Amino acid sequence: MKDESRDASFIVALAGGVGGAKLAYGLYRALGERLAVVVNTGDDFVYWGLTVCPDLDTVLYNLAGINNPEFGWGLAGESHAALAMMRRYGGEDWFSLGDGDLATHLLRTERLRSGLNLTQVMFALRTALGITAELLPMSDQPVRTMVHSDEGVLPFQRYFVQRRCQPRLLSLDFAGIEAAQPSPQVLAALDKASAVILCPSNPYLSLDPILLLPGLAERLRAFTGPVVAVSPIVGGQAIKGPAAKIMAELGVEVSALAVAQHIAGRIRLDGFVLDTVDAHLAGAVASLGITPLVTDTIMHDVASKERLARAVLMLTTKLTRSA
Amino acid sequence: MKDESRDASFIVALAGGVGGAKLAYGLYRALGERLAVVVNTGDDFVYWGLTVCPDLDTVLYNLAGINNPEFGWGLAGESHAALAMMRRYGGEDWFSLGDGDLATHLLRTERLRSGLNLTQVMFALRTALGITAELLPMSDQPVRTMVHSDEGVLPFQRYFVQRRCQPRLLSLDFAGIEAAQPSPQVLAALDKASAVILCPSNPYLSLDPILLLPGLAERLRAFTGPVVAVSPIVGGQAIKGPAAKIMAELGVEVSALAVAQHIAGRIRLDGFVLDTVDAHLAGAVASLGITPLVTDTIMHDVASKERLARAVLMLTTKLTRSA
Repeated sequence: MKDESRDASFIVALAGGVGGAKLAYGLYRALGERLAVVVNTGDDFVYWGLTVCPDLDTVLYNLAGINNPEFGWGLAGESHAALAMMRRYGGEDWFSLGDGDLATHLLRTERLRSGLNLTQVMFALRTALGITAELLPMSDQPVRTMVHSDEGVLPFQRYFVQRRCQPRLLSLDFAGIEAAQPSPQVLAALDKASAVILCPSNPYLSLDPILLLPGLAERLRAFTGPVVAVSPIVGGQAIKGPAAKIMAELGVEVSALAVAQHIAGRIRLDGFVLDTVDAHLAGAVASLGITPLVTDTIMHDVASKERLARAVLMLTTKLTRSA
Repeated sequence: MKDESRDASFIVALAGGVGGAKLAYGLYRALGERLAVVVNTGDDFVYWGLTVCPDLDTVLYNLAGINNPEFGWGLAGESHAALAMMRRYGGEDWFSLGDGDLATHLLRTERLRSGLNLTQVMFALRTALGITAELLPMSDQPVRTMVHSDEGVLPFQRYFVQRRCQPRLLSLDFAGIEAAQPSPQVLAALDKASAVILCPSNPYLSLDPILLLPGLAERLRAFTGPVVAVSPIVGGQAIKGPAAKIMAELGVEVSALAVAQHIAGRIRLDGFVLDTVDAHLAGAVASLGITPLVTDTIMHDVASKERLARAVLMLTTKLTRSA
């Protein structure tokens, strides 16, 4: 371990999809087994009869270093023979599952059906891939993100993939969240964590399902260490995905500041990482009682992921000392 | 339609795996929609949580002309990325499912789970692939071939694929067969058939589960048209698969004549097709009251499959006229 993370004994990171997985990978490089990544499961769905967990698998493949480097999700060098044959049969083809990726869904579905819970299944998968960090579903109970749009209510992947986020979003709800609870493993990770880091994931689609989970929201509010978030909005635009479009449709200003305000409305937020192009927002962030850190947040390679991770870890250390 | 099959208004073929599928393909070339192939389901099993039907799929892919020409089973040009990833996870890898092939098992499993029966599922699959012949599971109730061996009782695929037929076979039983029955579609096909052709499939592993099925065995015995079989044993050897080894272990002479005797012990057999190398057995076949036909039975290409099919059809026509 390098010096920067010396004081970070154990870190919990909250993550959604691609952006979150990038920082999670940087944190994993810095922390190894002293990291637990708690992942949104609101995007999970059933396809071809298989339980597919897009955010969990994106983090899984990123931490294992086997993700498709271009897309950020899926496996590197993936083939799509099953999809081609499925098309020939006239089966569903709107979601592109790769051939190697199918093994993940097949194993998961079979083990869930045998009675294991999602946390146990993901433990087996990440262990088999040699990942020493914890990779934890936010909950073992199903939570399903539903998009209320001008085209009606759409399950998340129907909105996100099949309709390419084209319907106008009116509101979101997370079906099943009232009955869901964080897994014992998530609570145990928080018990031993010195800081919580919110990865640069979509605050509405990826972080809200985690932050609104009964029991987890309370536990995060009671957390005494620093809580730090990294903005997924840079220069008024989303680095990837529909965050900017969604914020605009919800009538929210598309800015890093609005992200900080949104998260601070859910939990206590001690630190917020802004990209250098948003340096002018640092004062406004500080006026919310949140310590800003301005740095380069674009993660285009391993070095930039690890660099940002270490910068965020330094901020948590600084906030711990100043507490 | 060519002249040879003029009198064959509708044919039911009974088939197992690769050898049976080859003749089924030849018959399909000759007969088109005037063919129903009734397929053994005793080899079916669950793998990676999916319902896999090796014999049905071998016939499916052969009739569609998309089978692997070297192996006879599986898809041509198949990749194995899912299997490679499954190995990485430490999952089951003793049975090689190809990536495109997975679509077949995924669709089947999903549709069976939704409440369709196997006949309905196979109808959808063969129709999607443009096959106009009927492709019928022998039964919609599960029948599972169990191999009693010197290493204990093995489910068929464990014996056949995982153990490569190495254990010494003591006896066979077909679990569930007492409670199984032929589907209405199989019985309807027999009702309109002018002849029944037993493809050159393993008589013990592939044909017996069909011939011993309650209701189907009776219906075959009551069938008034000619019943003709093609020997899978040529020159005292199996063309493919463990038929010769099994016959030897069961204490049966490994010969085409013994195949004819075995089948004639199950149903009325009117005609039997022998390879030219077994011409010396024709007299013994005739002495059983079975009309022999000696011809080249090796099917190495499309032309030889169709040629054998037309020869077998001519025999059924001859037997119909002489009845």
